[in-house]
Amino acid sequence: MSDLGWNPLHGVPSYPAERYAILADRIGGILRSRNDMLLVQAEAVVALEAAAVSLARPGLTALNIITSPYGGWFGQWLRRGGATVEDVVAEPGLPIEIEAVAKALDAGPHIKVLALVHAESASGILNPLPEILALARARNIVTVVDAVASVGGHQFDVGDLGIDIAVIGPQKALGGPAGLSAISVSRRAWDLILRDGAPRESILSLADLKNWIDGGRRSLPGTPAPLEFFALETALDRIEADGMENIVARHALAASATRAGLAALGAPAWVPAAKASNLMTAVPVPQTLEPAALIATAGQLGVELSEGVGTAPARLVRLNHTGPRAAFQTVLSNVVAYGAALRQSGHPADIAAASEAISAAYSR
Amino acid sequence: MSDLGWNPLHGVPSYPAERYAILADRIGGILRSRNDMLLVQAEAVVALEAAAVSLARPGLTALNIITSPYGGWFGQWLRRGGATVEDVVAEPGLPIEIEAVAKALDAGPHIKVLALVHAESASGILNPLPEILALARARNIVTVVDAVASVGGHQFDVGDLGIDIAVIGPQKALGGPAGLSAISVSRRAWDLILRDGAPRESILSLADLKNWIDGGRRSLPGTPAPLEFFALETALDRIEADGMENIVARHALAASATRAGLAALGAPAWVPAAKASNLMTAVPVPQTLEPAALIATAGQLGVELSEGVGTAPARLVRLNHTGPRAAFQTVLSNVVAYGAALRQSGHPADIAAASEAISAAYSR
Amino acid sequence: MSDLGWNPLHGVPSYPAERYAILADRIGGILRSRNDMLLVQAEAVVALEAAAVSLARPGLTALNIITSPYGGWFGQWLRRGGATVEDVVAEPGLPIEIEAVAKALDAGPHIKVLALVHAESASGILNPLPEILALARARNIVTVVDAVASVGGHQFDVGDLGIDIAVIGPQKALGGPAGLSAISVSRRAWDLILRDGAPRESILSLADLKNWIDGGRRSLPGTPAPLEFFALETALDRIEADGMENIVARHALAASATRAGLAALGAPAWVPAAKASNLMTAVPVPQTLEPAALIATAGQLGVELSEGVGTAPARLVRLNHTGPRAAFQTVLSNVVAYGAALRQSGHPADIAAASEAISAAYSR
Amino acid sequence: MSDLGWNPLHGVPSYPAERYAILADRIGGILRSRNDMLLVQAEAVVALEAAAVSLARPGLTALNIITSPYGGWFGQWLRRGGATVEDVVAEPGLPIEIEAVAKALDAGPHIKVLALVHAESASGILNPLPEILALARARNIVTVVDAVASVGGHQFDVGDLGIDIAVIGPQKALGGPAGLSAISVSRRAWDLILRDGAPRESILSLADLKNWIDGGRRSLPGTPAPLEFFALETALDRIEADGMENIVARHALAASATRAGLAALGAPAWVPAAKASNLMTAVPVPQTLEPAALIATAGQLGVELSEGVGTAPARLVRLNHTGPRAAFQTVLSNVVAYGAALRQSGHPADIAAASEAISAAYSR
Repeated sequence: MSDLGWNPLHGVPSYPAERYAILADRIGGILRSRNDMLLVQAEAVVALEAAAVSLARPGLTALNIITSPYGGWFGQWLRRGGATVEDVVAEPGLPIEIEAVAKALDAGPHIKVLALVHAESASGILNPLPEILALARARNIVTVVDAVASVGGHQFDVGDLGIDIAVIGPQKALGGPAGLSAISVSRRAWDLILRDGAPRESILSLADLKNWIDGGRRSLPGTPAPLEFFALETALDRIEADGMENIVARHALAASATRAGLAALGAPAWVPAAKASNLMTAVPVPQTLEPAALIATAGQLGVELSEGVGTAPARLVRLNHTGPRAAFQTVLSNVVAYGAALRQSGHPADIAAASEAISAAYSR
Repeated sequence: MSDLGWNPLHGVPSYPAERYAILADRIGGILRSRNDMLLVQAEAVVALEAAAVSLARPGLTALNIITSPYGGWFGQWLRRGGATVEDVVAEPGLPIEIEAVAKALDAGPHIKVLALVHAESASGILNPLPEILALARARNIVTVVDAVASVGGHQFDVGDLGIDIAVIGPQKALGGPAGLSAISVSRRAWDLILRDGAPRESILSLADLKNWIDGGRRSLPGTPAPLEFFALETALDRIEADGMENIVARHALAASATRAGLAALGAPAWVPAAKASNLMTAVPVPQTLEPAALIATAGQLGVELSEGVGTAPARLVRLNHTGPRAAFQTVLSNVVAYGAALRQSGHPADIAAASEAISAAYSR
Repeated sequence: MSDLGWNPLHGVPSYPAERYAILADRIGGILRSRNDMLLVQAEAVVALEAAAVSLARPGLTALNIITSPYGGWFGQWLRRGGATVEDVVAEPGLPIEIEAVAKALDAGPHIKVLALVHAESASGILNPLPEILALARARNIVTVVDAVASVGGHQFDVGDLGIDIAVIGPQKALGGPAGLSAISVSRRAWDLILRDGAPRESILSLADLKNWIDGGRRSLPGTPAPLEFFALETALDRIEADGMENIVARHALAASATRAGLAALGAPAWVPAAKASNLMTAVPVPQTLEPAALIATAGQLGVELSEGVGTAPARLVRLNHTGPRAAFQTVLSNVVAYGAALRQSGHPADIAAASEAISAAYSR
Repeated sequence: MSDLGWNPLHGVPSYPAERYAILADRIGGILRSRNDMLLVQAEAVVALEAAAVSLARPGLTALNIITSPYGGWFGQWLRRGGATVEDVVAEPGLPIEIEAVAKALDAGPHIKVLALVHAESASGILNPLPEILALARARNIVTVVDAVASVGGHQFDVGDLGIDIAVIGPQKALGGPAGLSAISVSRRAWDLILRDGAPRESILSLADLKNWIDGGRRSLPGTPAPLEFFALETALDRIEADGMENIVARHALAASATRAGLAALGAPAWVPAAKASNLMTAVPVPQTLEPAALIATAGQLGVELSEGVGTAPARLVRLNHTGPRAAFQTVLSNVVAYGAALRQSGHPADIAAASEAISAAYSR
């Protein structure tokens, strides 16, 4: 029983500290990262706040790409720590344009850090990550990528892409627990973080987490939550057996089938495929209808759709095909339920063609 | 912690014997039975064997209605114990005709026991239970009903129907564990069972199980499986919160939507609605096609169909809408996947109309 | 997710049939058995009944060693199937004497089967298994060993010992689930079982279980209980990581420390070490005291002792050191609580010396 | 199934937002608090950091009582936010003296906040909470109490004691999950927190958490960890069934029995009973011995002791009797193992008398 760290006779189970490093290595493996891998004992939004807080200093200039509220928060966290932040804001509900980033970088020669979100759940868009990273690399800028809503749904190879700080959570496409998250930190990023004034003794201190790795111990007490750690191990068992390529392929198929279904329905997706997330597809609602009403109608079928965030005139409904939802059953019922809701509101919707298109996409 | 019967310090959890009676009462509640309720510590097929073995004696005559292999086994178990068994066999894959039962009862005045299965998973049929029970009641015959594949999917009120021995399992429409089952036994049935020669000291002895109830203890040792007992409690919490009427209604809707979808597809269900199970719908495969090939094609979409048992010329494929599958998503994807498989085999199938019909059924 | 046999989208988890053979092999591994390994989907007492029922025939003569009620039941099950059974009954609460077995074997040249229990929970005794097996082997007799209360606590190497039918359950020293059990069956035993008249289509039919193995399928329907199968896999993970030798050693230490503690207390164990189980130690209660009263007093300390079965004049209390209880904490608190109960009844008990002796045993 | 927020068909379980308020009320119930109850989605050390960060402002003066590193961190978190902090530091490993607090309060008329830890795990001490709260109340000072290591082990009635901010975690005496914690906040405390400049959009912002309560939603996204929420519900079921009084009584008995045992052993506890925690008892190690060596020796018996933090000359070993460890078995084996370790180091220890004393304490 010693191998489980638990003999029921001795009390409640706890997660053995010596397994922390193994866990970090396994996450490094699925991200193909050879950088330090830190586990944050809270949901991924905390890992993002920690990354920003740990980088921020008076004198640091950052370019912050905003394609959703998350990007906005990241800028605020940097500013709270004294950094100078230049925002590049995309059109509402759309990916950032590479040209806008290039222009901003050219205009700001003192930029040391560039931050962006890979895919956005709110609008179902995907930012042009490799192109933006190439721009940053050429300028020797430290990059921070929020991959919480993309990991498992899109190729995300930290090593190949050369990402300095990558933040992930296991609770979306990876189907794992929500109470833990992870950050991959490069040597270059550590150089920025560990300068004088690194925040310490805080849930938000990456320097503290590094101590834990380096010394095999954490510097700030706080019992690790055993349920989260054991659930993460179980999720990794499944992910490694399945293979990241297969998980990504399953999400890509779910996304393309959803898009094909919506097109056949007569309600094409919000952004073209090349700009779209594989986890979530947004569709603009006809002008005369209300997203909330359509969502309620679909809810009567037991299908959960949700409101998205687009431009002011384009109100979006989102179809979720993440994790176990990346499957024929959910893709089909999402699209048909959306079509049925359109119809019930007096709007045409070719449910028939949509079903055919989705069947065809999955039969190929 | 005493309330859970478990302090991790004292060792592994066990199911406290004093909760057995509470559990039995709760099962009695959902079946509306005021008879003795016995828990059998094995899957429901063992409860069925125990019922037969405990009733069987030389000199006992039973009418055994056969609408699937289960009925066949029940007859064998009775015969093994020395009983005289008269079989009434339905047309393959079809419910029994009431007239056949009436005729057999009239021809066999010494019949003391009548046994039948309520609904059959193999063919998706439902036997005319109330009518058959009325025939038995008029003749003062002890009735045995296998409701494993119907409970939760159809109204099953042991008290109102006046069933003497009812066997259920929690693992189908009730969504519970598979390692336990339950038997409701009336006073009249006990009179038959407890005569001289009741089998004892066996997993198959209902008389032993009665001792357990009467004495608050079991007569034959054997550690109760705590996982099964705790899972059954959790399932009952959910069932009681949901209400049996709602669970039955959900299965009825899933069945009628499946049937509507199949009709629109151009592949109507095997039996008419009045003769059909709410858990499982069987559809006869066109003569030129193979069930196994259609099932494999649907499997490529991630949809699990299975072969059914019909008449020799009518080979069946089964669409499962049991428990969590009694939902729009599964009903829709089952029918569309079956349609896609027909099409891929060169057979027409109106997927479009099927999707519409299922949406309409669920939108009402 | 396919590797788990479960996508939550497709419904409730079920245990994949193709993992059955792997599971059987792993159990064979920990028992060092190269015989067929059958899994019985119920508690181990059902596996024992199945072994007896599957062997029994008119014309078969068996020698049945009785050292507890289990032995008595085994004889009844054999007789129920028509076998001729000769009982060799030990002194109450004591192991069988080898001489008695030898004498009975010499007196019964037609004996084909010999059955015994390895260790008895009721009295905490261990029968002289290797010696008895040697007697049987010399006479070419098929042996049946109930190792439910010994496996994990004593060396139990089915291959080396040459046991024909070995029955185990994972719920005691192995710390696994209670709703499954296993039977190892040699070719010689199959020859006896598969003769004409093998019981079929029953939970008690080993021939049916063999069909399952041979054909990769079970012959009699009945949903496998997924909770039990998954829990057994988890237990095997732990057992294999720990090693059977270490598990046995832990029980041997718990037994010897318990015995040393009781001796120091002034209340020596019921049987000498060579005749004692490593899972459970029985101690005879002083003539003037009642076991139930002592157990109740210990219960006030939160320590669970229980009544044992000894000779009429020797009433026993049992100290349990099985599975997670095979640890210093339980051994110490069992003995001290028993000592405190003796004292409270006005009987001397050297708690001090007992504590010292147990500490010494564990410090070595 | 809707009542569980989970139909496996629709994907992975999530914790329904509408149950948040019920959960908060239940925690309020066990703390007898009528103040706002906030749930923090991380271990309790994060809740403490959030309380400090949310209170801290330039211009705020706080009196910070330090009886362990936690108190030191709390002061740093306040200072980081710009507050003026006056520390009152206790003798190492000892509770604070009330006179020192009174003197510091008299010397600092501008003090608005007083912070202290109720019980310390590191040294096993208990601070004189009611007396200190009375001093603060008389001066209208907002009080912050870290009750993470005391709740469940000592009476902790937030309403009666008039505590403004109380921080608890369920993972110690309450036996719940570690990935969530809770903060009770009075109206007076909100007045201080919600002034201009309250930190926002951070895991550390109590103002954000208040938004969640007030609006039934959280302001900052972040998926709630379902495992933690469901485990907290289960722990509350158990706590409510058991009753906080019984849980506290069990810890009080474990502490007094441990102290009696140590006294009889000849190794009396570090602080007198009135100054001692009920979760953890510290004992000073003889001058010639090393805590680590004693701990290693006890570890060979399977008993987990740990090093404590005392004065420089008094090195402490800690005996843990928290949660499921608040039981005779653990108390007895902790003390006997410590005694055996002393002996093995050549130091006298009356294991015998200790066992007697512990039995006597539990038999009363």
